[in-house]
Amino acid sequence: MVHTKRTYVESPKGFYCQDITDLVKETLQDSGIKNGIICVHSERSVAAVVTMEFEPGCVKDFETLLEKVVPIGIDYEHHRRWHDGNGHSHMRSTLVGPGKTFPIIDRRICLEPWMQIVFVDFQPAATKWELAVVIVGE
Amino acid sequence: MVHTKRTYVESPKGFYCQDITDLVKETLQDSGIKNGIICVHSERSVAAVVTMEFEPGCVKDFETLLEKVVPIGIDYEHHRRWHDGNGHSHMRSTLVGPGKTFPIIDRRICLEPWMQIVFVDFQPAATKWELAVVIVGE
Amino acid sequence: MVHTKRTYVESPKGFYCQDITDLVKETLQDSGIKNGIICVHSERSVAAVVTMEFEPGCVKDFETLLEKVVPIGIDYEHHRRWHDGNGHSHMRSTLVGPGKTFPIIDRRICLEPWMQIVFVDFQPAATKWELAVVIVGE
Repeated sequence: MVHTKRTYVESPKGFYCQDITDLVKETLQDSGIKNGIICVHSERSVAAVVTMEFEPGCVKDFETLLEKVVPIGIDYEHHRRWHDGNGHSHMRSTLVGPGKTFPIIDRRICLEPWMQIVFVDFQPAATKWELAVVIVGE
Repeated sequence: MVHTKRTYVESPKGFYCQDITDLVKETLQDSGIKNGIICVHSERSVAAVVTMEFEPGCVKDFETLLEKVVPIGIDYEHHRRWHDGNGHSHMRSTLVGPGKTFPIIDRRICLEPWMQIVFVDFQPAATKWELAVVIVGE
Repeated sequence: MVHTKRTYVESPKGFYCQDITDLVKETLQDSGIKNGIICVHSERSVAAVVTMEFEPGCVKDFETLLEKVVPIGIDYEHHRRWHDGNGHSHMRSTLVGPGKTFPIIDRRICLEPWMQIVFVDFQPAATKWELAVVIVGE
């Protein structure tokens, strides 16, 4: 059995995290699948799907970590060639990865209560983002 | 065909890596699945599943790398709010990711002999951890 | 339905990125699978599969980012033990991860036109690399 869903996440300007756990859980419920694997994926090369405890402290810590490792203000060759001001957005997505895959057991995604599925937008501008979810199982 | 397994990994205090390759391979053997995809996933938001050559040098290098990128001793907003001393544990898990997904071809997980599947505990305290494995295939 | 493919990527000396999007798309076409999940995976512990906009700027930015976070020239315990000069290669693969998993909807891997699937070789020497692709779906 395969169940698919394409949807959108809207983001404001700047670094933005949105908890999409409920959206993903509802997709699983709609599928009727009991055991399997679920893939949650940003279709854009300047965004990502991660896991974290979704509370303002972790969100801020993640922004600080990325600013240290992949800063906004430094020179990027991507920007030199295309002048679109999002070199850091591309590198953050490449480093963290655009999606995550989770096991499903007994109609439940295997996440403890303090682990949420989070969409992260690295693009400087406000954007509407394609998000794809596919579940394979029985 | 779908095969599921939930099990536990026990970790001592501090940074800890455990080779879980044999456990994952046994789960594949039990499943009888010949070709497919296997998802190996930590259910906690302060742990991870990675791949590495599991030998003491790489384990130490990974600890050193994480201590450089996501140090233990700096200020974390998560800690300021919740006072649980594990801000670095959360960020390490978010950066590295809680799980990995592998292809299975001809009853074999596609790993060279020098590539192991490793559970990593970022939590300061000793803990018992939930690990979920799901295989989808035929 | 399950479709499998094992193939090879050849890399020259030094940091090397190869766009494997067409190879992966052809594998999907050959499979006849319409909806499902595809796993693309390097079988070696010193290489990786990532996503990025595959243009020379992003490729150079990724090399610069890795050189900052996981430099080539520093001391690695792995090298002290095995003298094979690839401590950084192992750590880069562990940090970034050896593979990626993507959703497939309506015979299409969910990637915008500016998101490519890229094989990355972290090994200093020229090598021939095993790449595994498995698709599960219907």
